[in-house]
Amino acid sequence: MKTIVIVAHPELQASGTQQFLKEAAHSADGVTWHPLKWVNTNDNAIIGQERKMLQNYTRIILQFPLYWYQAPALLLQWLAVVLHTDDEQKMAEKELGIVVNIGQPLSDYRLGGSQGFSLSELLSPFAAIARRLKMKLLPLFVIEQFHYQQENQKKHLLVEYLQYLELEQPFTFAKKEEWFIKHLQQIINSESKNEVEESTWNAVLELFQERSEELAELKAEIKIMRRDDENQI
Amino acid sequence: MKTIVIVAHPELQASGTQQFLKEAAHSADGVTWHPLKWVNTNDNAIIGQERKMLQNYTRIILQFPLYWYQAPALLLQWLAVVLHTDDEQKMAEKELGIVVNIGQPLSDYRLGGSQGFSLSELLSPFAAIARRLKMKLLPLFVIEQFHYQQENQKKHLLVEYLQYLELEQPFTFAKKEEWFIKHLQQIINSESKNEVEESTWNAVLELFQERSEELAELKAEIKIMRRDDENQI
Repeated sequence: MKTIVIVAHPELQASGTQQFLKEAAHSADGVTWHPLKWVNTNDNAIIGQERKMLQNYTRIILQFPLYWYQAPALLLQWLAVVLHTDDEQKMAEKELGIVVNIGQPLSDYRLGGSQGFSLSELLSPFAAIARRLKMKLLPLFVIEQFHYQQENQKKHLLVEYLQYLELEQPFTFAKKEEWFIKHLQQIINSESKNEVEESTWNAVLELFQERSEELAELKAEIKIMRRDDENQI
Repeated sequence: MKTIVIVAHPELQASGTQQFLKEAAHSADGVTWHPLKWVNTNDNAIIGQERKMLQNYTRIILQFPLYWYQAPALLLQWLAVVLHTDDEQKMAEKELGIVVNIGQPLSDYRLGGSQGFSLSELLSPFAAIARRLKMKLLPLFVIEQFHYQQENQKKHLLVEYLQYLELEQPFTFAKKEEWFIKHLQQIINSESKNEVEESTWNAVLELFQERSEELAELKAEIKIMRRDDENQI
């Protein structure tokens, strides 16, 4: 799977959130970072290039902050010149992900909340786009109040963001676990650690794998018990 | 009441729909036509001018075609630089109207329709804006498939559009009737007609006024009957 992150932010350099996400994306496998610039509506060479580029990816992520409850003008202009309404042959079966960051708490976006609408409602145009082009829409990825987040919240965000870019859909617990094991393995194999670190990581990894096997056994057991129960009814 | 129509169309001159609406608006009372251009985000003189301008109007209409289920980039960029999130003191009690034109039939915009979402869902960001700035949101004004409309459909559209710009809210039947009488009167008083036309119009107007009185009587009668009914229960 190849992922492209299309970043629409009018002041990209000044955005701490976007810089954080950019660094995270750089440590991901096969992820391309594509910050948007204004596309001249008559520049067919650039438009053709952008259209061709999309064909190289199976997961397309649109990433932006919410301005007046909508995507920034930059993204809408790009959509208008790059996507055609009859592109479903080209776009069908690709995945469409939305990474949106908001300055208010997520809990404000609901019936009776201070914003009065859910993000799913406000961003429904993207669901309509996915539907029109027969793309698979991934669950929204929401980053709330990045600048108020504590260090450990940001670490969580980092992991979840990387999984959003890399993991195959649907994002099951098993796939997340596998992802963790792979990443831990990479850390262990890399050379920038001392021996103590390495053995610690190894221990964590072993424990994790052990737990994972244990969990698989438990799940199998529950499955059998359920089947027995159902047969009794 | 003073109305401003903020028109966001990337190719305004080429749009038959917008040219039609522009002509219609010119025959309306106290309506300002304001086609948007790209606003340089640093041009504080222009931004200040746009902000000040809005203060002169009690009804603000945003008028645009739907591109990828959203307002054009032009409008979003204008909103981003002209409106502030703490503008409710300036904007509260103003009315916000949305005139949107669509290339597909309106019936496609619903659950199970070919677009899968209603226009109210897709345009919910504007409801959120109105809510945030404590503005009164007018019912959406939708123009569907303008280019397929017959001459008499366009005449209907013209009248409904003018009423959307001019009529006080809520748009009751009585207000629409009053509006018709006023406009017929204006036509009769204007000098660009021959005598036959004038007498025809006069006849229509008389009939209309007569009907209007009849209707008022009938309504009063029904009211009394209802009250009697309720008293019997």
